[in-house]
Amino acid sequence: MDKTPIICFLTDFGLKDGYVGAMKGVVLSIAPHARMIDISHEIDSFCIASGAYVLGSVVPYFPPGTIFVAVVDPGVGTERKGLIVKNPDKIFIGPDNGIFSWVIDVQSSKVFWIDPDGVSKPYIHSRVSSTFHGRDIFSPIAAHIANGVPVENLSIPAKESPVIGEWLHPQADKQVINGRVVHIDRFGNIVTNITKSFYLSWKDRYFPALLSAQSTVVEIGSSTMKIEETYASVPKGHLLALWGSNDHLEISVNQGHAAEKLSVGYLDEVRMFIK
Amino acid sequence: MDKTPIICFLTDFGLKDGYVGAMKGVVLSIAPHARMIDISHEIDSFCIASGAYVLGSVVPYFPPGTIFVAVVDPGVGTERKGLIVKNPDKIFIGPDNGIFSWVIDVQSSKVFWIDPDGVSKPYIHSRVSSTFHGRDIFSPIAAHIANGVPVENLSIPAKESPVIGEWLHPQADKQVINGRVVHIDRFGNIVTNITKSFYLSWKDRYFPALLSAQSTVVEIGSSTMKIEETYASVPKGHLLALWGSNDHLEISVNQGHAAEKLSVGYLDEVRMFIK
Amino acid sequence: MDKTPIICFLTDFGLKDGYVGAMKGVVLSIAPHARMIDISHEIDSFCIASGAYVLGSVVPYFPPGTIFVAVVDPGVGTERKGLIVKNPDKIFIGPDNGIFSWVIDVQSSKVFWIDPDGVSKPYIHSRVSSTFHGRDIFSPIAAHIANGVPVENLSIPAKESPVIGEWLHPQADKQVINGRVVHIDRFGNIVTNITKSFYLSWKDRYFPALLSAQSTVVEIGSSTMKIEETYASVPKGHLLALWGSNDHLEISVNQGHAAEKLSVGYLDEVRMFIK
Repeated sequence: MDKTPIICFLTDFGLKDGYVGAMKGVVLSIAPHARMIDISHEIDSFCIASGAYVLGSVVPYFPPGTIFVAVVDPGVGTERKGLIVKNPDKIFIGPDNGIFSWVIDVQSSKVFWIDPDGVSKPYIHSRVSSTFHGRDIFSPIAAHIANGVPVENLSIPAKESPVIGEWLHPQADKQVINGRVVHIDRFGNIVTNITKSFYLSWKDRYFPALLSAQSTVVEIGSSTMKIEETYASVPKGHLLALWGSNDHLEISVNQGHAAEKLSVGYLDEVRMFIK
Repeated sequence: MDKTPIICFLTDFGLKDGYVGAMKGVVLSIAPHARMIDISHEIDSFCIASGAYVLGSVVPYFPPGTIFVAVVDPGVGTERKGLIVKNPDKIFIGPDNGIFSWVIDVQSSKVFWIDPDGVSKPYIHSRVSSTFHGRDIFSPIAAHIANGVPVENLSIPAKESPVIGEWLHPQADKQVINGRVVHIDRFGNIVTNITKSFYLSWKDRYFPALLSAQSTVVEIGSSTMKIEETYASVPKGHLLALWGSNDHLEISVNQGHAAEKLSVGYLDEVRMFIK
Repeated sequence: MDKTPIICFLTDFGLKDGYVGAMKGVVLSIAPHARMIDISHEIDSFCIASGAYVLGSVVPYFPPGTIFVAVVDPGVGTERKGLIVKNPDKIFIGPDNGIFSWVIDVQSSKVFWIDPDGVSKPYIHSRVSSTFHGRDIFSPIAAHIANGVPVENLSIPAKESPVIGEWLHPQADKQVINGRVVHIDRFGNIVTNITKSFYLSWKDRYFPALLSAQSTVVEIGSSTMKIEETYASVPKGHLLALWGSNDHLEISVNQGHAAEKLSVGYLDEVRMFIK
């Protein structure tokens, strides 16, 4: 088995500038054998919910031991903590602002704080800029972990619970599921925080058997639609809802841009109900 | 010689979302030693001609044995087949929709169908989504081929000819070559399906010797231009035609955006004639 | 220690087309063991100052021995020379147009010319296109250097000094530092050629002690601002100046796009003075 460590990057730094390149140079200078994989550097600027969603969507597909550096960090240079989250088979490094909401599990995740002036100091850049912790703190930490330094040696146990986004889960009662838009993808597909399993539990509880005249309706703004199997289930240009490749409810336009068509933005409300 | 397998990706998934990352995670989980190279993930959405052109333009530069996963797939979830094309020295995996038009050779290519419910089943994701075959079918197939599984073991011989785009070759008679726009590059250069060798054969056949007053004219919409050697052969902002780095006829604006200037779109007509 | 050669790419080719993929295929065909890292392929088209700045900003973070291929090349196909710059610990390959302004050191850099019809011929593509030297000249040269071919064997000593951008350093007198915009990043942050060390030397010389009523003012167009510690030092949407992660003076809008807000373009003037 190949034991080359894998470091994945997810940021909103874009690919135009040298930000990503500098992080990779830092990693290669410390851990020259590490494999580096880009998840995305095009997360919408400062949009933590979107970064958290994209991170959560790819993590299950990576092999055990993978290290993820995730930096969507509007609060860089303020007092926000730097986190290391140690899950049973993967490690996450980045700011404590909700970016790890989808991957932190209360039971099994161990959460650590990076301590730039204390135990973490030998493992970060000697001079930390106030604007680029991805390069100066998170990447060198990741590289040292890739080199085998135990997380416990380069960070301290977190003294407070990590930030979890309030957009993580939908709200629901008997009448309706109230979800939120957590991601808008490149095609303009609107991804919500409503998962298929959440929906099925809700339906089993309140609507164990539908009448023949009843069906599930998805509503966003003043538009309503039904859940289809594939994009091609409706004519080109038409709205549809479907369970996306990640089992989240998505609202799409076949071969079109749903978010523009509906003027939808991050954290907007999406409702599901039976009618 | 280095025998690390190479897997190249070409998609219209963009780099914003986790789609590409998920495919790479899948490959690394199956074939941790594979090298992965991104050709492009910014193919214009659903534009098969463009994806096919870009794929064809890079394939000759890769070493023998390279595996290409190409996913521009507006018909995902419908009945369209998944293909494996085995050329004498390279392998291609993706949907049967014309994306391999430039690389399939009637003589030497062997074409296979992926059979998700049959022989391919052990080599794909246990639960195939209806929207993301790049992750659930094509990437795991590529990874298993990289691991040495013979194509014949994980797919079946195709029972029908693969789809070949009708935009693959220009039409021509004594008067004119009728070509099509098959790609618009990042700079706005308009790439056509007219190759230099097609043009030279046509000219040799119908115009073996030009009169001194004659020259070759390129026409698109109501604009005409001559063939130049380099972008810098005309003043900044002026139109020109040239044989691009891939020997296809391109229409460009020196340091400008030809497609916007001319309001040209995919599959628009381009003509060449002698005047 | 890992001795895998590293080749970094910086271009304005974008990620939509096959240009970058073709370069990587060329490298892998010659030097299959080379690691390839993308610094940026989204440098603003033909903007040499921006490419030079981004290159300069990442080079210090890469390990000794790293090879950089930098291609922002509006003059491709003209008489401009191809360069190899050999620094004490890194190597740079690309056009002679100023792209290496930030990394050439008059004392320690050795500069070579690529000689496509002479000594370089065996190390480049057998047929050089007039539009894509990145693929046909610079990438194969890089791959052969990665394979251990001495720079002296595949190029000749430069017969003239390399082009250095006149935008490299700011001008200053007792009244004012006159700088220029050399880069606009993905967030719209405006990066100038005024470094913190240049500013401190100027201030120490002319203003060794400020009066309590005096402070440093940054001016661009008709807007003025003060130097802050972090983006978050001003309210959302407000202008600020700060020393960026690379110690260059940057002009930003907290969570906004400074270049659009101020209608600023490349090489525009930026002034610093004491008031």
